[in-house]
Amino acid sequence: MNSPLFSRRDFLKTTALAAAGLPLVGARAAEPERKLGFALCGLGGFSTHALAPAFRETKFCRLAGIITGSPDKAARWKAQYDIADHCIYNYDTMPKLADNPDIDVVYVVTPNALHAESTIKAAKAGKHVLCEKPMEVSVEKCQQMIDACHTAKRLLGIGYRLRFEPNNLECVRLAREKVFGELKLIEAGFGIALKDPSQWRFNRALAGGGPLLDVGVYALQAMRYLSGEEPVAVSAIQTVTDPAKFHDIEESISWQMKFPSGVIANGAASYRFNNLNHYTAYAERGSFGLDAAYGFRGLHGKRSDGKIIQLPDINQFATEMDDFAQCILENRPTRVPGEEGLRDVKIMTAIYEAARTGRTVKV
Amino acid sequence: MNSPLFSRRDFLKTTALAAAGLPLVGARAAEPERKLGFALCGLGGFSTHALAPAFRETKFCRLAGIITGSPDKAARWKAQYDIADHCIYNYDTMPKLADNPDIDVVYVVTPNALHAESTIKAAKAGKHVLCEKPMEVSVEKCQQMIDACHTAKRLLGIGYRLRFEPNNLECVRLAREKVFGELKLIEAGFGIALKDPSQWRFNRALAGGGPLLDVGVYALQAMRYLSGEEPVAVSAIQTVTDPAKFHDIEESISWQMKFPSGVIANGAASYRFNNLNHYTAYAERGSFGLDAAYGFRGLHGKRSDGKIIQLPDINQFATEMDDFAQCILENRPTRVPGEEGLRDVKIMTAIYEAARTGRTVKV
Repeated sequence: MNSPLFSRRDFLKTTALAAAGLPLVGARAAEPERKLGFALCGLGGFSTHALAPAFRETKFCRLAGIITGSPDKAARWKAQYDIADHCIYNYDTMPKLADNPDIDVVYVVTPNALHAESTIKAAKAGKHVLCEKPMEVSVEKCQQMIDACHTAKRLLGIGYRLRFEPNNLECVRLAREKVFGELKLIEAGFGIALKDPSQWRFNRALAGGGPLLDVGVYALQAMRYLSGEEPVAVSAIQTVTDPAKFHDIEESISWQMKFPSGVIANGAASYRFNNLNHYTAYAERGSFGLDAAYGFRGLHGKRSDGKIIQLPDINQFATEMDDFAQCILENRPTRVPGEEGLRDVKIMTAIYEAARTGRTVKV
Repeated sequence: MNSPLFSRRDFLKTTALAAAGLPLVGARAAEPERKLGFALCGLGGFSTHALAPAFRETKFCRLAGIITGSPDKAARWKAQYDIADHCIYNYDTMPKLADNPDIDVVYVVTPNALHAESTIKAAKAGKHVLCEKPMEVSVEKCQQMIDACHTAKRLLGIGYRLRFEPNNLECVRLAREKVFGELKLIEAGFGIALKDPSQWRFNRALAGGGPLLDVGVYALQAMRYLSGEEPVAVSAIQTVTDPAKFHDIEESISWQMKFPSGVIANGAASYRFNNLNHYTAYAERGSFGLDAAYGFRGLHGKRSDGKIIQLPDINQFATEMDDFAQCILENRPTRVPGEEGLRDVKIMTAIYEAARTGRTVKV
């Protein structure tokens, strides 16, 4: 793992200033001469409410362009974010990105099953690509994305925002430094009650799967970054209790994994209920974990020695984008490369296979 | 389920008086003319530290006899508890219990794989039997115990103390009354770090298995009493990271179960670490659970609406024994019959089969 872009002291300082409503004078003074131009590709809720506002807090990125299939959205975003006309694209005109020096990075935020298509177009146009999780809906498509960026000599990163989040990093530290001894068991789960069945997440053709791919991937990531290992075997059970709503994707799924060291992980993901947003790592001499573990803010947890884990919030999106920009500017690898996304998709494919066949599947 | 012996108000009253160090005058006034005579069969740590002292707090039971293979222990217990000579037995002399009207109930607290032997001897001698969990190490032996007590027309109960524990009963209420809607997922786990590998729990011939049978049964019970259902399918993974210590039994095991309504349960049991002592039930509109969930005292938990679950401690052993005595005195069934113990052993057998074969097993 690379060192984080910001030290913990930087996080604290930036957050404290922002919380006080003060302009980030220090940060501005340190701003680079040129910010990388990002184009958001797919203007749904996540782009609208999470990513676009985050550019106000980035040091190395600016919202330079948009890629959308909706002329209405294009007009609204152009007005709100002062997007230049030559930086507004639809999915068909993406090849023209090659002629646009104002855009360095395409951030792919489309439905899952369209990630490869936009990533490959962007790479062929010479752009670096940051892509939301899950990376894609099959191992093959993930590999195509990696190959396209490799051929184009462009960086590919996956939007694993928690890999930059201080409370999660603190739990990784507790695991790596064996503060409570060797890990033995990880419990992790993430559930959200999705209400509107007309959204793309209920459509397998667009989503590639259900809550496992969408929110379970956070629990899977936690199992992997806490254990520091890759699973060797998975078993799984899935369920539907509301078939009228969940006829195309699973409603809830739980899975178990075994790691080479003998660590076992129990996971669950659901679109049927909230409040499942945690992980706990049990080690030889104690335990630690977060609850809530996966949200945009307010993450916190506890340790078996009574200490609380509650580091200040950061803007996870700004931090993730700034790290990606710095990796490009400094020509160094990202901690969240395409290969990392592919690994998760490979494991989740095995989880689905285990649930379907009722057999433990080797990964 | 039968109504509990004590109402919640009784629990609160008794506990408050005891906590204040006051004599339980009211309780004494209500004492029955005759307390049932219990003989503890197997004088290990649980009999010594948990059960024997609990007789001081029972209304309907008295410690009348002992059954032990150790003459030393017999002498010590005789002195400490004023046990009459004619009420002291070893495993070979158990048939003579038939001639002893001072003993009504044999409480079997031997290693797991010896439960059937003592239970059947006690039943043949005309005694009611309360037996510790797990009931036995195979479905066949559980059935033999049920049959023996049925033939002898004697009551058989299993020592599921948490079926009388107010915090657990409160969670059952929240589930049954659907306070947070229909249950969807249950997470439950119980781990203890067992240090001394010379004890019988590490010996498969005596224990029948490892942490699943010993502590996992609590998590399994919770899944069943929270869901109110019987599982239809289980999958499982087990692990050993310290083979020098865990060569005869599993070190840790985790399992998943699916219930007819679609509820999924994720469970874990371990002899390798502490701090795993919880369950959480996730329902449509919220969640609730206990952590700690399975201890002798100090159980508490929380609900997603912010309310705390923390009902006062009771003496779980006294309550369990008094309920069993009342069932006998009132000629009514117990909420923890042999059939309940058999169900758990059947499911745990399926969990072991799933772990061994790597296949989801129908129950």
